[in-house]
Amino acid sequence: MLSRHQIERVVDLALEEDAPFGDLTSEAFIPAGALATADLVAREPGVLAGAEVFAIAMSRRDFAVKVTNAMPDATRFEAGDVLASVSGPARSVLQAERVALNLLQRMSGIATSTAAYVAAVEGTGVRVVDTRKTTPGLRALERHAVVCGGGHNHRFSLSDAVMAKDNHLALVDSVEGGVTAAIRAAAETLPHTTHIEVEVDRLDQIEPVLASGKVGTIMLDNFDLDGLRRGVELVGERALVEASGGITLDTIADVAATGVDIISVGALTHSVRALDLALDVRVGPAGAPGPGRH
Amino acid sequence: MLSRHQIERVVDLALEEDAPFGDLTSEAFIPAGALATADLVAREPGVLAGAEVFAIAMSRRDFAVKVTNAMPDATRFEAGDVLASVSGPARSVLQAERVALNLLQRMSGIATSTAAYVAAVEGTGVRVVDTRKTTPGLRALERHAVVCGGGHNHRFSLSDAVMAKDNHLALVDSVEGGVTAAIRAAAETLPHTTHIEVEVDRLDQIEPVLASGKVGTIMLDNFDLDGLRRGVELVGERALVEASGGITLDTIADVAATGVDIISVGALTHSVRALDLALDVRVGPAGAPGPGRH
Amino acid sequence: MLSRHQIERVVDLALEEDAPFGDLTSEAFIPAGALATADLVAREPGVLAGAEVFAIAMSRRDFAVKVTNAMPDATRFEAGDVLASVSGPARSVLQAERVALNLLQRMSGIATSTAAYVAAVEGTGVRVVDTRKTTPGLRALERHAVVCGGGHNHRFSLSDAVMAKDNHLALVDSVEGGVTAAIRAAAETLPHTTHIEVEVDRLDQIEPVLASGKVGTIMLDNFDLDGLRRGVELVGERALVEASGGITLDTIADVAATGVDIISVGALTHSVRALDLALDVRVGPAGAPGPGRH
Amino acid sequence: MLSRHQIERVVDLALEEDAPFGDLTSEAFIPAGALATADLVAREPGVLAGAEVFAIAMSRRDFAVKVTNAMPDATRFEAGDVLASVSGPARSVLQAERVALNLLQRMSGIATSTAAYVAAVEGTGVRVVDTRKTTPGLRALERHAVVCGGGHNHRFSLSDAVMAKDNHLALVDSVEGGVTAAIRAAAETLPHTTHIEVEVDRLDQIEPVLASGKVGTIMLDNFDLDGLRRGVELVGERALVEASGGITLDTIADVAATGVDIISVGALTHSVRALDLALDVRVGPAGAPGPGRH
Amino acid sequence: MLSRHQIERVVDLALEEDAPFGDLTSEAFIPAGALATADLVAREPGVLAGAEVFAIAMSRRDFAVKVTNAMPDATRFEAGDVLASVSGPARSVLQAERVALNLLQRMSGIATSTAAYVAAVEGTGVRVVDTRKTTPGLRALERHAVVCGGGHNHRFSLSDAVMAKDNHLALVDSVEGGVTAAIRAAAETLPHTTHIEVEVDRLDQIEPVLASGKVGTIMLDNFDLDGLRRGVELVGERALVEASGGITLDTIADVAATGVDIISVGALTHSVRALDLALDVRVGPAGAPGPGRH
Amino acid sequence: MLSRHQIERVVDLALEEDAPFGDLTSEAFIPAGALATADLVAREPGVLAGAEVFAIAMSRRDFAVKVTNAMPDATRFEAGDVLASVSGPARSVLQAERVALNLLQRMSGIATSTAAYVAAVEGTGVRVVDTRKTTPGLRALERHAVVCGGGHNHRFSLSDAVMAKDNHLALVDSVEGGVTAAIRAAAETLPHTTHIEVEVDRLDQIEPVLASGKVGTIMLDNFDLDGLRRGVELVGERALVEASGGITLDTIADVAATGVDIISVGALTHSVRALDLALDVRVGPAGAPGPGRH
Repeated sequence: MLSRHQIERVVDLALEEDAPFGDLTSEAFIPAGALATADLVAREPGVLAGAEVFAIAMSRRDFAVKVTNAMPDATRFEAGDVLASVSGPARSVLQAERVALNLLQRMSGIATSTAAYVAAVEGTGVRVVDTRKTTPGLRALERHAVVCGGGHNHRFSLSDAVMAKDNHLALVDSVEGGVTAAIRAAAETLPHTTHIEVEVDRLDQIEPVLASGKVGTIMLDNFDLDGLRRGVELVGERALVEASGGITLDTIADVAATGVDIISVGALTHSVRALDLALDVRVGPAGAPGPGRH
Repeated sequence: MLSRHQIERVVDLALEEDAPFGDLTSEAFIPAGALATADLVAREPGVLAGAEVFAIAMSRRDFAVKVTNAMPDATRFEAGDVLASVSGPARSVLQAERVALNLLQRMSGIATSTAAYVAAVEGTGVRVVDTRKTTPGLRALERHAVVCGGGHNHRFSLSDAVMAKDNHLALVDSVEGGVTAAIRAAAETLPHTTHIEVEVDRLDQIEPVLASGKVGTIMLDNFDLDGLRRGVELVGERALVEASGGITLDTIADVAATGVDIISVGALTHSVRALDLALDVRVGPAGAPGPGRH
Repeated sequence: MLSRHQIERVVDLALEEDAPFGDLTSEAFIPAGALATADLVAREPGVLAGAEVFAIAMSRRDFAVKVTNAMPDATRFEAGDVLASVSGPARSVLQAERVALNLLQRMSGIATSTAAYVAAVEGTGVRVVDTRKTTPGLRALERHAVVCGGGHNHRFSLSDAVMAKDNHLALVDSVEGGVTAAIRAAAETLPHTTHIEVEVDRLDQIEPVLASGKVGTIMLDNFDLDGLRRGVELVGERALVEASGGITLDTIADVAATGVDIISVGALTHSVRALDLALDVRVGPAGAPGPGRH
Repeated sequence: MLSRHQIERVVDLALEEDAPFGDLTSEAFIPAGALATADLVAREPGVLAGAEVFAIAMSRRDFAVKVTNAMPDATRFEAGDVLASVSGPARSVLQAERVALNLLQRMSGIATSTAAYVAAVEGTGVRVVDTRKTTPGLRALERHAVVCGGGHNHRFSLSDAVMAKDNHLALVDSVEGGVTAAIRAAAETLPHTTHIEVEVDRLDQIEPVLASGKVGTIMLDNFDLDGLRRGVELVGERALVEASGGITLDTIADVAATGVDIISVGALTHSVRALDLALDVRVGPAGAPGPGRH
Repeated sequence: MLSRHQIERVVDLALEEDAPFGDLTSEAFIPAGALATADLVAREPGVLAGAEVFAIAMSRRDFAVKVTNAMPDATRFEAGDVLASVSGPARSVLQAERVALNLLQRMSGIATSTAAYVAAVEGTGVRVVDTRKTTPGLRALERHAVVCGGGHNHRFSLSDAVMAKDNHLALVDSVEGGVTAAIRAAAETLPHTTHIEVEVDRLDQIEPVLASGKVGTIMLDNFDLDGLRRGVELVGERALVEASGGITLDTIADVAATGVDIISVGALTHSVRALDLALDVRVGPAGAPGPGRH
Repeated sequence: MLSRHQIERVVDLALEEDAPFGDLTSEAFIPAGALATADLVAREPGVLAGAEVFAIAMSRRDFAVKVTNAMPDATRFEAGDVLASVSGPARSVLQAERVALNLLQRMSGIATSTAAYVAAVEGTGVRVVDTRKTTPGLRALERHAVVCGGGHNHRFSLSDAVMAKDNHLALVDSVEGGVTAAIRAAAETLPHTTHIEVEVDRLDQIEPVLASGKVGTIMLDNFDLDGLRRGVELVGERALVEASGGITLDTIADVAATGVDIISVGALTHSVRALDLALDVRVGPAGAPGPGRH
């Protein structure tokens, strides 16, 4: 899903802010000709996301840095596993290390957390999906990480699906035909490929929404378990049902059991814990491949 | 610390990725002339960071959106407090909402978390500082948030201070004079304004480092409490002492009690929980100032 | 649909390429203090698209240039109508003229052409839609122009809906379950908001596609009128039907009469005739509002 | 004339707007390892422009996509001719196809149309030239296409030659010496390398313009054939004569016969018909070179 | 000649590199509310260039900074003269000071140096012109400064005039007709607005160049005074004559006396001495307009 | 210190401004297939800075241009020395020549000038350092050149060290504790890695500054030699002493003899003389390696 071009834009921003005038430490301490080898090692178990991003970040400033990924994205690994190997000029490896890890740890953190949510609803057929609560500038990367963790993506942006909330329907009451007519009128103007999802806060809002015949998904926002069950029943097979609002790893199995089709979890991307991954670097003199790289 | 220019660059990236082809929902449901007013409301207590970022994000696409901040950055607030007021064309307000909140919630999450760490060491004179484990592209914003929460910044980038780790000193053994000489040689090449910090893993590394007479800060990496106490004692007044490595809200008070001067906490920025802030929007017909804005 | 931010990016590129080192002619012939007023006049009838783009392009280099739009986008006008008025420093007006007109003439050309296609199918309920055959860098502007002309947008990009063609299904034959199974499998991985459209070249391809139960639109590619009629019949109410392939203003009414729901026309954006709009400028001495601006 | 750097900037913008979050269809239907080969085939005769642009657009996201151009720019081809061959990962080929074709079809459309105008004046020694009515952001590419078609470029921008029109001379009447003096004064300030062209609307304007001794080209704007003949006579050998204004393929031969040196045609770039070129793609399983590529 | 858009691009780059993470000093020492006023004072006499650039640089980060220019570009001033006044938030004024001065001092240095060269040839009618030896990224600004100093611009770039040197003519010998034919052939392909200048190293090269009838300027490269005189004689009125190569303030009057039309001086832009201009800042408490600003 | 990414950004800007629409001369005179070889030759002795920048600038538009650097940065060379060799398509070599030389001549001019200042204080242990008076957009390159010449860098930007001047301390008088307290208060807020330097204009300012115990460097601004000597004495070993203000090659040895540690020279970067380096190009027919490249 990620294109090299998008990854490079993120990496360039990150490298620029991390070294506007070079890496003082490496230049002061490490001879220009020294080489380094490094293993990217997991300090805790998890799911990999961002292997290609890591490789581009490591070599973007200096093509002489080579990265070999040991496994593809979406692979589950254990603490101690080597995820990738790096070799190249020592100064370049050390300068790129932090930026490359910042990206990989965040993405793998998202994938790992997503995998936990997905595991909690395993066997139910329920989708765990992300939201637009992503880090500014990193949406494509974070959405990719959710997929690596076994989750699904929700709409990518305001431009690719409708999500009508109470504010969008606030002026509808005075319109003839109410919500039902308003949705039909909107559908007339939208691209025929646009999926329409409507958020409701109360059960009695479901019927007028569905009466439009244009709605693909009903989102039940902040409903309790009983409300969700009754909502699923009311909707029947007429639309997908998405549950949303403060759902955690503790509560997701119960929510899934209500019969909803989709559960969206903002925390997948808005509150990320970086996974503990580290680069074990070995610096050697020029000419030598670095200690330990037989 | 933040300049408008830097904020706009982040906001533009975020707006672009969130609506490459406009906001389908607002355009389909809300008349072009409708107005909206909104209160930015705290759903949980916290410390504000990013008030100006929020204001720029809300009005960047449409100058007709006006934002009045109710309090400056670094203010502590309670659940229910109104942090800012927004008014303008309803479509523009709704389109900008998510991006503005994503930035503000993240920054305020950092400030609030930092404040908790700072409170835990209150009275000790110990500094809580951040690291380079920031989100790519957002370092200036996240560093500002740490300061709003009462923390201090560590070096901003690889270009503004030296942090010599084992990899930087890996080739030193074969050099005459060892680490002591290596640090002196490095100091000869560095700008005279460059602060030199050296990371050590063992107590016996402290003396050769300090013997250089050039080191401003010793970082004790992953030391236990006893090691920290002995390290502080060994260093004496000859340098600042920074403790680093897996320090949490639970352990920071004990670490501070060892006598270190500085405690760095990567989690301040690498594992952020977005604070629960919301925009309560009221959409009204054109000409009306929106319901509730008497 | 257009945000100021996106318009400015296009305008900046255009101004940059049109005057990398200033406007030699204006600077050599027109005193720095001279003022100008101008009317934007239609030389032929049409439909307006790009009024805001025109205004931004005129004033982007010099905020002293003021533009008053006489009518909003999507308005139909006659030859001789004044579409907007401009006033400001003469050098700035003359320098911006060509870029502003290039954008407005292209966009209004698209809107006017679209309106002709839409008129040709009036009363049939058929949608005229655009394609991805847009000018690189101008898609958002050109898509907006199609809407101004009464057309509808198709998917905006590769990221917001599926359009499966023969190449996408080329490897399907060897898969158990064939196309039907392939579409179901794809739907499992796609966001639940993703509309799936499938292109077919033969009538016998329709049934396996529809059997998946996941397809919202069938595109009949390069079918003759009889084929379209039979395709519509075969699909029934199970999906929308889109006709595509070389449809012109001469043939669109007949195509619409076959019962299809949607007709896509690449020529709307890939072969644009700029509408004949001109800026009638009057240059006057400094202090005077310019001749004719009573 | 085109540099790789400029081409990449255009291509990057186009790829970004065409797939902000990846190509959903290819990812959902085509295995990651599948390969594709493709022939770029002409569906109608024409003149090639943009071969290098096409190649860069095809491979910009994924260097594994290889393009072999079968002929250089400015080559005339027939319907059915293979213009280039493409091979690489199937997902990457399909994702880049539309952007690459959009650019090549537009450029080749311009070259082909230009060639028709040039053919119409063959043997007269008259130049067919373009104007500043180009697509914003694409001027360098479109100007190159005009040259591929056998046309000549006019000035590239406001910065590289003077084109004085009535608005530039509007304040001249009150100046001592009138137009003649104004042009001499302007020439004093302009770079000595700046060619001065002046547009006239009436025959009696020619003499004062030429009297300046500084004008290299007179443009006769919207003159009828008789006016052009008399204008050419009046100018004699003292300057080049350019005819401009609504000249079409039907009228250009007559205009050329009046003796003018240069005919500028805005339609070459402002009203482009994309040439019908297509990519015949064959998708195969991983390991196979794709069907038909023996 | 400069457009706001180009100035902002330069200023943004400069501000970004000068404060990637804010101005530590101002933030640490100056209260957020303090105001400042400042006079831009000349420490030596000169010619002003860049008044608008200075104003934009001062206020780009903070619109609350106001600048009043006391004189327009191209004005001659004495040591002690106040060139502009600045007022605004003290932190913002101090942060922008260095970048604004760097630009203004460089541009005014160029204008002042140019004025000295121009004065040295006063009364001869000879033009002093610049070259392409400008600072990367600053050409438009530096060219503007040359004009402020009374000099003229040479071609702006490789795209707006021909300058044929020996390397361009290296393959000509083997061509039938030699240089004369080569220039005629080139003229056939070039835009009719392109001025052709040819550089010669020996007097015997002049005739074949002029024989082409297409050359507007002959450049005599590194000729001694006698050679220049003979070159001028040989050329007669058939072309402009430009002298080039190591001409200094000491030698320019003698060169001008040889009868050449144009003298190009690379040092105008490639070896610039920044003019001594300073910002006298007065910082005051919030609410006060700053000391001395009655 | 320079990363490829930063160099490319500068080079791209320079190439863009130098050829927005190609190199008319090369395209008109040189066959597309012609090759060229070239030697980069020193016309005067100097110190090399920018070898990598030169290589990137030569090959950025056309990867077929190959550059072999004959010596690394910081090497001293004599007039006549060959610094690098270039080969590739003749058009590409000639188009890139000026931009590549502009960068290299400026950087080597800085390095050479710096080396002269450094030589003048040889044996004294005094550092010659640069300032923030650099060319906008080129700071990283110019700072690197200073190091190549044997100088040292001062702080890179406003973000990496404190330099408190009178304006920063203007409000201090009314504060309890005066300058001493103000500096201590500032130090409390600054990162612990921030070096604090304070500029003083009078000897009596030294003591309160040093009394803070937080100041690493005292800058004596515009002191005469006697003042410098007394300043050094007053400071003792309590801080580094920097002399600043109008120090030239004539006066620097005397300044160094006063006992200061550091001498900052704005002229190193604000008034640069481009070093005389030239590219001796030999153009040959296609297929031949170019004359003289045996």
